Amino acid sequence: MAPVGPRSGDAIFSSIDRVNAELFTLTYGAIVRQLLTDLEEVEEVNKQLDQMGYNIGIRLIDEFLAKSGVSRCVDFKETAEMIAKVGFKMFLGVTASVTSWDADGTCCSIILEDNPLVDFVELPDTCQGLYYCNVLSGVIRGALEMVSMKTEVTWTRDVLRGDDAYELQVKLLKQVAEEYPYKDDE
Amino acid sequence: MAPVGPRSGDAIFSSIDRVNAELFTLTYGAIVRQLLTDLEEVEEVNKQLDQMGYNIGIRLIDEFLAKSGVSRCVDFKETAEMIAKVGFKMFLGVTASVTSWDADGTCCSIILEDNPLVDFVELPDTCQGLYYCNVLSGVIRGALEMVSMKTEVTWTRDVLRGDDAYELQVKLLKQVAEEYPYKDDE
Repeated sequence: MAPVGPRSGDAIFSSIDRVNAELFTLTYGAIVRQLLTDLEEVEEVNKQLDQMGYNIGIRLIDEFLAKSGVSRCVDFKETAEMIAKVGFKMFLGVTASVTSWDADGTCCSIILEDNPLVDFVELPDTCQGLYYCNVLSGVIRGALEMVSMKTEVTWTRDVLRGDDAYELQVKLLKQVAEEYPYKDDE
Repeated sequence: MAPVGPRSGDAIFSSIDRVNAELFTLTYGAIVRQLLTDLEEVEEVNKQLDQMGYNIGIRLIDEFLAKSGVSRCVDFKETAEMIAKVGFKMFLGVTASVTSWDADGTCCSIILEDNPLVDFVELPDTCQGLYYCNVLSGVIRGALEMVSMKTEVTWTRDVLRGDDAYELQVKLLKQVAEEYPYKDDE
């Protein structure tokens, strides 16, 4: 029987296939190191990580929709809560919270309580402009685009850069009405 | 209390931090895609994936030793069994088996029953020489080097190349006696 409503992130996380978090952390570190070697500018690495994340996000949304039982969020506020409470738990095993809503409900912050991507990571002085976790912002942007929401996702706080938390600002730019590929009378 | 003997791969796997396997699969896919774009030759991509794996393996061995309770294997045969039965389970959540030992016990095959790296992967015709999972051979080589075993690890069967299983040949080249960094009387 298909689930009738959204399942909790914890319940989903415990029922799906998983791999060791340290292996994931080290594998992600290997990507970042590779990009820093291949591309000369830190800014280019940021862009590439974001693009990789985007490519991952547009596929990961299928797994999210299939496993979470979430069908459609009523608005961007509910969407942001789903990402924080179900999405982060389901994929990274961590919880996140949503804060700092603007007045018209189109911009908020997602704060990560834990971030498995950065275990054992210290940035050398030569990488100070790096957004090490930029893959995450890309994943959110890609996943939301697949459910018709154009967003801009940026890091506003980053512990690796000396801040006290990991905070992503998610800004809804445009909500595209879903269109059927064919008209009914065709 | 420290564990007194090796724990089963299952027990370890259920007690450690984990992330969603699909996220890992897609992230790994993003690395391979990136390398195929950046490096022109498939052979270079194979080398780079192996090198990445090596860099991961030399760190992952610490996690393995710390979490598994495995202290020292009596010989290469026991080492290979540990990799297959505890290592693969602990890191990828899959089981593997060891076969095809040579007469002097320095060369064997590890066969993977399941391989989360390749879910949804199909190689295009332009990538026929690619060893998509080459990171795994590098991880084993790197991890074993940290416990004083120089090995050569090569893929002998690969489902993505049309074979009926994933099979890694692990060959012990040299076992280096561990040396203390200082002599006792220094």
